[in-house]
Amino acid sequence: MIGKLINDRVKAGKQAINELYNTGYYGRPKGDVLELTLIEAAYLLYKNRLEITMDEKALTFQEFFTEASNRQQFFELKYIVYKDLRERGYYVQPSVTDFRVYPRGGHPGKTQAKMFVYVRSERIPMPIKDLLSQYTAAVNVRKQMVLAIVDEESDLTYYEVKKADIKGSMDAILPEDEPVPATMLEDRVLIWDEEASHLLYENGFYGKPLDNERLQLSLVESAYLLEQALIKIKDGTTGNIPDLAEFSETASSIDPDFERKYSTYVDLRSRGFVPKTGFKFGTHFRVYNEVKSLNKLPHSDYLVHAIPQDYEFFLPLMSRAVRLANSVRKQMLYSVEFASGIEYIDIGRIKM
Amino acid sequence: MIGKLINDRVKAGKQAINELYNTGYYGRPKGDVLELTLIEAAYLLYKNRLEITMDEKALTFQEFFTEASNRQQFFELKYIVYKDLRERGYYVQPSVTDFRVYPRGGHPGKTQAKMFVYVRSERIPMPIKDLLSQYTAAVNVRKQMVLAIVDEESDLTYYEVKKADIKGSMDAILPEDEPVPATMLEDRVLIWDEEASHLLYENGFYGKPLDNERLQLSLVESAYLLEQALIKIKDGTTGNIPDLAEFSETASSIDPDFERKYSTYVDLRSRGFVPKTGFKFGTHFRVYNEVKSLNKLPHSDYLVHAIPQDYEFFLPLMSRAVRLANSVRKQMLYSVEFASGIEYIDIGRIKM
Repeated sequence: MIGKLINDRVKAGKQAINELYNTGYYGRPKGDVLELTLIEAAYLLYKNRLEITMDEKALTFQEFFTEASNRQQFFELKYIVYKDLRERGYYVQPSVTDFRVYPRGGHPGKTQAKMFVYVRSERIPMPIKDLLSQYTAAVNVRKQMVLAIVDEESDLTYYEVKKADIKGSMDAILPEDEPVPATMLEDRVLIWDEEASHLLYENGFYGKPLDNERLQLSLVESAYLLEQALIKIKDGTTGNIPDLAEFSETASSIDPDFERKYSTYVDLRSRGFVPKTGFKFGTHFRVYNEVKSLNKLPHSDYLVHAIPQDYEFFLPLMSRAVRLANSVRKQMLYSVEFASGIEYIDIGRIKM
Repeated sequence: MIGKLINDRVKAGKQAINELYNTGYYGRPKGDVLELTLIEAAYLLYKNRLEITMDEKALTFQEFFTEASNRQQFFELKYIVYKDLRERGYYVQPSVTDFRVYPRGGHPGKTQAKMFVYVRSERIPMPIKDLLSQYTAAVNVRKQMVLAIVDEESDLTYYEVKKADIKGSMDAILPEDEPVPATMLEDRVLIWDEEASHLLYENGFYGKPLDNERLQLSLVESAYLLEQALIKIKDGTTGNIPDLAEFSETASSIDPDFERKYSTYVDLRSRGFVPKTGFKFGTHFRVYNEVKSLNKLPHSDYLVHAIPQDYEFFLPLMSRAVRLANSVRKQMLYSVEFASGIEYIDIGRIKM
């Protein structure tokens, strides 16, 4: 069987429609012609199911591969992913997001495609808006969105990307009549009263005991409790009593991510979760669905990292975050604040 | 027992030397006076073993703690670490690197201190040169260097920092008479010859097979094999045949970290290791002591990340890297190139 290389397509005759399309769903029939992408053609050449000619001359695999690489950006990357998917037994067709992949047992004409696969190089940072536009393209036609990342040694990792609408089951603490006095010292806030310390720690898992009497609160916890009128903060140096706006300003000067972290913290609390620092995991928060007793602290369920709308994923770091979350049986979520509210993006490794 | 707050010290009388120094090694005796740091004094006040006066007036814990926080930067951070170490049963004295800690069963006057503990806030990036100067201060007096990191919720993580002189046990491949032809396509290099592909893959674990005949090499692998005269690279677009300098220039335009990664790659190979990409772990390399057979690929031993001399550790990321390495039973090493050669810095979590 012979195909001709014409621009960024390889075109083969009617026989190819029978032998390549009807048996393996390679290419797209256009009248009596089967049109193959460069990637499909390279794979068929490798499988010895197609010869490819350019200017009447047959090309070796090396010649065609080099030629295709010059004609299409990221050709090798995409070829590696295509070959892997085909060898796993999937039928694959080109799509707006690189590839449409049919479910096992399904094929074009019989079933709908199941996934949109989007190929990226490890090396090229991925803006969150690219990821979300690919995600939207997939979701609008009810497809699963899969991200295939090719590393520098051509190893592949697949991730499923989806939005997560998460709910916890923790009740809020009702405000007391009088806010509890607290003091801001450098970058944390202390509650000195023993009873209040125990109440906040044991009923909402706020803060960490300095000792049996006193409680230390983080900046986001302090701001949240201030907003809930559960505490009143005094600056330990100036004696000033900041309101939420003033406190946020001070907190932002200590932690430049404060505002972003705080929005996510408030949203997670309002969804019934208990967020605590995720420092040991390298993320902003570890998140508990519910904390009933501090003596039997449950396993936390999510790691959440609050990112800005113009964030770019540096893929080795994303890979590390997801891998670490999975190794400790948690789900890695990225929170992004939009005008409509905070969205949680769930990126999880999958086996294809 | 009464101590007087004077500047950044609390001074107590002769009785304190007997009751506080001789029994618990708090403070430093100076003649008839026991001089305590603010941190030691706060801890003794909390333990009800000392009263503290300022201008003849006794201070509550809250008053003294607030006062001390205004007089000493990072007072709470250091107090948290000091309290934790004391409660673990260690004798602790102030030192150039925050604290000197005595081994279990040891104390001042009987034994040498065992560790220098250096306290950092999670929030403040740590320049590698600060870390190394603290390390040198510890090593020069034969102490272990311990880094105590306090997170935003006042949780503590301890790390031991040391330099690692590592050796692998892999033999180098001897060059053939003629370098093997290879083609550079976009950001990777392909070897088309079946025999050469198998030789390089199976004897040195270079590259990744594209299929049973062809091998894909990463940029650092290609540069190394080019330097060893094992391959000859042709540019798939221009037809140019670059030497190592030209290839490195192209590689650096694709991967800005190329030169730094390459120095570490060459050093690791010269030490008898097999370095491969660490993408899945979010680091530059995963490193094998030896690869005898690719059918039984061993567990890799190290994760190595090549950092510049002016690198600043962003501590949540360092925490994540170390935690992930430990969770997959590897050691996390940072490589830094100095005029004298490449040094490997081993940062590992420890339980105190």
